Amino acid sequence: MSAVVRDRMSAERIDVPAGLAGVVVAETELGDVRGLEGFYHYRQYSAVELARTRSVEEVWRLLLDGELPDASTAREFGAAVRDLRDIPDAVAAALPAVARTTADADALAGLRAALPMFAGARRIRPLLDIDAPTRRRDALTIGAVVPSLLAALWRLRTGEPVIAPRQDLDHAANYLWMLTGSEPSAAAVRAVNAYLVSTIDHGFNASTFTARVVASTGADLAAVVTAALGSLSGPLHGGAPSRALELLELGSGERAAGYVREQVAQGGRIMGFGHAVYRTEDPRSELMKEIALAFGGPRVDLAVEIERAILATLEEVKPGRALRTNVEYYAALVMEAADIPPAMFTATFAVARVLGWTAHGLEQARVGKIIRPAARYVGPEPARSL
Amino acid sequence: MSAVVRDRMSAERIDVPAGLAGVVVAETELGDVRGLEGFYHYRQYSAVELARTRSVEEVWRLLLDGELPDASTAREFGAAVRDLRDIPDAVAAALPAVARTTADADALAGLRAALPMFAGARRIRPLLDIDAPTRRRDALTIGAVVPSLLAALWRLRTGEPVIAPRQDLDHAANYLWMLTGSEPSAAAVRAVNAYLVSTIDHGFNASTFTARVVASTGADLAAVVTAALGSLSGPLHGGAPSRALELLELGSGERAAGYVREQVAQGGRIMGFGHAVYRTEDPRSELMKEIALAFGGPRVDLAVEIERAILATLEEVKPGRALRTNVEYYAALVMEAADIPPAMFTATFAVARVLGWTAHGLEQARVGKIIRPAARYVGPEPARSL
Repeated sequence: MSAVVRDRMSAERIDVPAGLAGVVVAETELGDVRGLEGFYHYRQYSAVELARTRSVEEVWRLLLDGELPDASTAREFGAAVRDLRDIPDAVAAALPAVARTTADADALAGLRAALPMFAGARRIRPLLDIDAPTRRRDALTIGAVVPSLLAALWRLRTGEPVIAPRQDLDHAANYLWMLTGSEPSAAAVRAVNAYLVSTIDHGFNASTFTARVVASTGADLAAVVTAALGSLSGPLHGGAPSRALELLELGSGERAAGYVREQVAQGGRIMGFGHAVYRTEDPRSELMKEIALAFGGPRVDLAVEIERAILATLEEVKPGRALRTNVEYYAALVMEAADIPPAMFTATFAVARVLGWTAHGLEQARVGKIIRPAARYVGPEPARSL
Repeated sequence: MSAVVRDRMSAERIDVPAGLAGVVVAETELGDVRGLEGFYHYRQYSAVELARTRSVEEVWRLLLDGELPDASTAREFGAAVRDLRDIPDAVAAALPAVARTTADADALAGLRAALPMFAGARRIRPLLDIDAPTRRRDALTIGAVVPSLLAALWRLRTGEPVIAPRQDLDHAANYLWMLTGSEPSAAAVRAVNAYLVSTIDHGFNASTFTARVVASTGADLAAVVTAALGSLSGPLHGGAPSRALELLELGSGERAAGYVREQVAQGGRIMGFGHAVYRTEDPRSELMKEIALAFGGPRVDLAVEIERAILATLEEVKPGRALRTNVEYYAALVMEAADIPPAMFTATFAVARVLGWTAHGLEQARVGKIIRPAARYVGPEPARSL
């Protein structure tokens, strides 16, 4: 009898904290989040430094293969990704129906519907049934097409013509192009590239863990990503970055302070403030603020005024809690400045995070062991017969 | 600072067995599997006894609401389910494209594509945003339509006209009707009803756990089920019940014995034999064998002969391992006898298991806490700057 079988059959039950907090479910070489230090990294590199200096493609290559590419490898990788952006005709033909049926749902619902069709059209097979090069190819194929699918579904939803990907644009610029139909400014491309790089991975959150559980069964990478998208669509995980913008509608620091007092008195939360992992400044938030300030303008000035008022009021009404601005607040401003529609903020997050999910899927598949936990039955003692 | 936040920020890491074996991730009132006793139950009732004596609808009601319905409640519940079987027109219009793109994938891929569209059309909302009656209604809606979607996709895939659900048939009979287009025999209905009831739930396997992780984020129940379907599609979880039928092609006990010796010598597995949880006879397998024997005929006689030869040979070449026939072997025979095409065996499993997944989704949503584990970074020490 193998150790695996013995483990599962044993009546022994191991108790752990609720929600598996702190429970090590896997080893990973992909990166880590150090919540107490306000630091996170991909492989052995600071994620924030990567976001400042590297393209999505370079960091994607780093995550997949373990090393930052030199200029020629980066060119080669970028070209390979560009060649995988097209939506197959059979899938494109189905997208209007997908957009129509999911018109009232969040933008991720359409992607969840489209991905299994895309996987079928591109013959993406179960991880367990394919070799490592094919798995890596599937990861590239899915990561490359997700921006195309999301942009196409958005254009269909808003009644505009779908825009084909452009070979002369890199990942961030091409996404903006397909989404808006306008030539994006260099500042917008830089900003969105930095946002995407900083968003590729962030520890074993619920969607990444979902990806790993599904990958542990040997399912195909599209099923892995579709499942993770489901978790991301959950309000407790994906949140609602677009709601951070609503704070700006308060119009002044003074009104924001009043709003915070009111919300806290009612036991409500303030979107864009507080984070489960970071005790320090959220390093992603600092980066996004820096980029927002570089855009400048009255909208950013207002955001800074409102942030200051909110932090001061939170310190006053919840002293010692050290609630900080999280990534959603300034990320929303950056996406807005780059002409991304608020309804596509979470989808834009997914454009980046799919690169992390697929990398985790490949890593989990190499473990080759199914994730199958236990539960404790707490109902009435069962009878043997009815 | 709440206990939740403190838990997550703590640098403390808790080590557990690989694959979370034996780790208690939740409390449940839905049921349990006692692998050492060869017994499993839904609520406080033996699942096998329920499968022998109750309809899918009665057991579904038991799982959702905690009690076996009396005759009048059962009638009411059955009528409510029947009213939820129709595929909305907007989704029906998209199914040919779904069937076309997923024609070469397993039958679950099409369902994964169709469900987000169905959820959009039926306005199924995130669990976190809706009250308990609406959640329960969504569970019924999804459980009721899954057979319709799977049957329609199968008929489209095989180039046959889609068949509408029939109000005069219960869950099992209506599924067979929509799938085959023939009036199912009473024996087929009884057999498939028993198979479905016995398959509704079975502990915290990978797909049920996937459902709970996604539900813990507050996502909608269709996203929960779509994610679980992804895990079920993984070869390490869903297996391939149809492959058990291939053993019958060996044609005799003697040839089966030779095949087993050959497979074991090569380190291969025998489909339909051995199970991760049961040390005793798999109670589902006993039930399926009993039903297959009731069908009778030369095919069943052959299956019995081959089973006997395989078990004897396994005992000879792997003494003391006590490998038993698992549920897949006779379940495949039962489904075949009921005219379910082998390519739809896993899909038929999903017709039942979706009732378990949705019940688990509702239970997890009541916990209201996200499942967010940890990992151990094992790569090179990261630098603060590039």
